[in-house]
Amino acid sequence: MNVPTNLGFTVKDIAKAVQRRDVIIVIDVLRCCSTIVTALANAAEGVTPTKTVREARMLHNKHPEFILAGERRGIKLKGFDLGNSPLEFSPQNVEGKHIILTTTSGTKAIISSENAKYVLTGAFLNAEATAKAAVRIAEQERTGISLISAGTNGRFSLEDFICAGAIAKSFPVDIIGHSDAVLAALLAFKQARQSLNSILQSGYHARYLVSQGFEEDVKFCSQLNVFKLVPFLNGETIVPLNGSLLFY
Amino acid sequence: MNVPTNLGFTVKDIAKAVQRRDVIIVIDVLRCCSTIVTALANAAEGVTPTKTVREARMLHNKHPEFILAGERRGIKLKGFDLGNSPLEFSPQNVEGKHIILTTTSGTKAIISSENAKYVLTGAFLNAEATAKAAVRIAEQERTGISLISAGTNGRFSLEDFICAGAIAKSFPVDIIGHSDAVLAALLAFKQARQSLNSILQSGYHARYLVSQGFEEDVKFCSQLNVFKLVPFLNGETIVPLNGSLLFY
Repeated sequence: MNVPTNLGFTVKDIAKAVQRRDVIIVIDVLRCCSTIVTALANAAEGVTPTKTVREARMLHNKHPEFILAGERRGIKLKGFDLGNSPLEFSPQNVEGKHIILTTTSGTKAIISSENAKYVLTGAFLNAEATAKAAVRIAEQERTGISLISAGTNGRFSLEDFICAGAIAKSFPVDIIGHSDAVLAALLAFKQARQSLNSILQSGYHARYLVSQGFEEDVKFCSQLNVFKLVPFLNGETIVPLNGSLLFY
Repeated sequence: MNVPTNLGFTVKDIAKAVQRRDVIIVIDVLRCCSTIVTALANAAEGVTPTKTVREARMLHNKHPEFILAGERRGIKLKGFDLGNSPLEFSPQNVEGKHIILTTTSGTKAIISSENAKYVLTGAFLNAEATAKAAVRIAEQERTGISLISAGTNGRFSLEDFICAGAIAKSFPVDIIGHSDAVLAALLAFKQARQSLNSILQSGYHARYLVSQGFEEDVKFCSQLNVFKLVPFLNGETIVPLNGSLLFY
């Protein structure tokens, strides 16, 4: 069976992916999607993304028991409980808690995908698990897979592109029809995989994060296949993909 | 000195490159830019690109002594002297001749760049020469360099992306500030360089060309640094870049 795969470089590519009824994998390595998978792996109950800071605050007013988290320009917002560093989303901080998250690019990309039936979030931390889940769903639904990079302020992002290659590397070779962009990402990942952290640090957004003191975040987010968990957008909230969801 | 480099994936990215006053390198490996450099290396006098078939025919009516060349859907046009296969542009066919060329993506991208002061065309065949010329001009003019992939019907093209990496590989390391897309293309080229022909053949447009009987073209266009010649858009006609042009 042939599952066509596509790769979009920015949020602008989401509309076409939704039109094609593709399974969408939103990728934002630095740091939104790395943070989400870490939070859920550390037993957060769910993550509700919002596009704007205002929406995040309003939702928190309704639910003051939720954790309010997020960033603009990489920095934790005033009055927020947490920023967007995955290292903050420890079991002590998030276990059993519901999180509201707003970030510059990632949460916007996730929300822009909400009309798709299946939206997963991918990062290096869960590349293989995400790939396998997406292929399973795409086969079942007889659709394609669109990898969507959240981008950096609407621009092409090195780390998301390489991560798209990492995810595509885990698609079974025999069933996938890759677009040119997916083939290119695969090449880049194969070249980068032996020194992911240092190559990621050459990218624009990683350099910015390092300049803001987040070098440990970049290191953490460069780790491959640490988690088997796949975050899945269920209505307005991201939860771990439940195997049974796939077969209802 | 820092020369910022950018990479645009389709013709849509040209406007910004022109605005930035960048030196533009149009890349269309399969086959327009490979054909142009081959024609000029085989002593064609010049190549005038046109956007439409109609314009090509009109120009030929004015100048019946010119060679009329080009394709749509990869196939030579009715009544044309040559198609768009670089192998046709032999010394016997083109020496001392002026060529009118219209292709699906490449000539459109070149013409869309005409408001830039410096437009070069790049391919694997002349990657290093193009890179060195572009850096020399960019340093002199204190501008950046924009690599622009002509794309395949407005879509990302594997071979042009890898070729952008091949060109970027010849930029001097110490003076270049690469965008994320250029860094990604460099990774892909490093991974692909040992088997360029077979990797190019996995791409969408190469598969189409092979299906139309043009496998030899794909092979020919996969060769690295065969020519030292750099095609340069001078007014409406592409001619070999003359060293003296750079220092007037």
